[in-house]
Amino acid sequence: MNATAPAVHPTHTHPLRPKRAPEKMTSDRAILDELCASTVIAHVAAVVEGAPIAMPTAFAVIDDAIVIHGSTGSRWMRALAGQEVSVSVTQATGLVVARSMFEMSVHYRSAVFFGSFEPVPRELYDEYLVKFTDRMLPGRPAEVRPSTRKELAATSLVKMPIDRWSLRVSEGMPEDDPVDVPGDAWSGTIEFALAPATVTTAPDVRPGIEVPPSVRAFAANPVGVV
Amino acid sequence: MNATAPAVHPTHTHPLRPKRAPEKMTSDRAILDELCASTVIAHVAAVVEGAPIAMPTAFAVIDDAIVIHGSTGSRWMRALAGQEVSVSVTQATGLVVARSMFEMSVHYRSAVFFGSFEPVPRELYDEYLVKFTDRMLPGRPAEVRPSTRKELAATSLVKMPIDRWSLRVSEGMPEDDPVDVPGDAWSGTIEFALAPATVTTAPDVRPGIEVPPSVRAFAANPVGVV
Repeated sequence: MNATAPAVHPTHTHPLRPKRAPEKMTSDRAILDELCASTVIAHVAAVVEGAPIAMPTAFAVIDDAIVIHGSTGSRWMRALAGQEVSVSVTQATGLVVARSMFEMSVHYRSAVFFGSFEPVPRELYDEYLVKFTDRMLPGRPAEVRPSTRKELAATSLVKMPIDRWSLRVSEGMPEDDPVDVPGDAWSGTIEFALAPATVTTAPDVRPGIEVPPSVRAFAANPVGVV
Repeated sequence: MNATAPAVHPTHTHPLRPKRAPEKMTSDRAILDELCASTVIAHVAAVVEGAPIAMPTAFAVIDDAIVIHGSTGSRWMRALAGQEVSVSVTQATGLVVARSMFEMSVHYRSAVFFGSFEPVPRELYDEYLVKFTDRMLPGRPAEVRPSTRKELAATSLVKMPIDRWSLRVSEGMPEDDPVDVPGDAWSGTIEFALAPATVTTAPDVRPGIEVPPSVRAFAANPVGVV
């Protein structure tokens, strides 16, 4: 997909900021990539057993596709096969505190991808699990043993090429009604940020095994709250 | 719905932690309520124009129902009418760093609600918008003027009674393969936490108008990243 011309699905009429929604749309692929790189969880919307459901799942962008994984026995993942679905990646980044309840809203970045999932070729599983793990916790694959054949056989990996997508970003100051601006009410924004994360060593770790570099680096500068 | 016996929808076979998923399920209504009270965004899964989509939207629990709002012109919200849908409320709370890539996973709390949305009676709009705002930013309604009739007329409020739901919680230490435990790899968890939030006053706020108590209290102890 050309980065300057995303195929915007007509249904992404975004409810987070219903008023003036069109101006929130962007086709900036760099923002899309950064959003995906800093979000742990995506919601995959599919019809399962007759009803729509948004399943939260860890994801990674690998080879320009949304990649998710599960166990080979996952009924939910099998239900995706051949189905036109969508994937939502959302961050709430702050609150917009206006001078009226009506104008109060949320700062967010929201992408919706449209398409269908296809299997990752089996011969790529080893490489993809390394890339997936490295996306979740950079540097971790080099700190652990390789995946076993048994583990790879118990895993199901599917991908949706990044092709049709819609991206909205809400940022900036409240858009108060002009009649409210001279009043006594405060107006502004509250932006969320992650604190350094808390690392806990499992009780069965042998004395002398230190917290590894991947964990120390991530905890100091965490990304990826949903 | 009886808190001790949630009607668990069979399709909530949760992909975040596909292995051993059954043991992650809980029927603890107190956890459900706390999850909803500390999450800003829900994803509403619906079929819109023939395709399933998970729309992120701010939500509040009011009178034992999931309440969402939008503009009266929202095509997306109109598409919900009469449709069996689901609402996902998800928090990623940390990373589970195992001794193998296979056992790496995410700590999360995930609820899925099933049902359909119905209109909030018009005579309750004023009260519901106050409650909705107070949920997003406690104390804020008392700091701003009441909603106008025009604002209420431009708003659409719908609710889904909390009746059928499924809740999963992933917490605790990695469940490493016993053969990996004596090895040299570290194992443990990384837990996310929010830092105090950044407050920015809008440039058009008159000098002398201070950051109000609602904003100061929230920023010091923020809740509600998606």
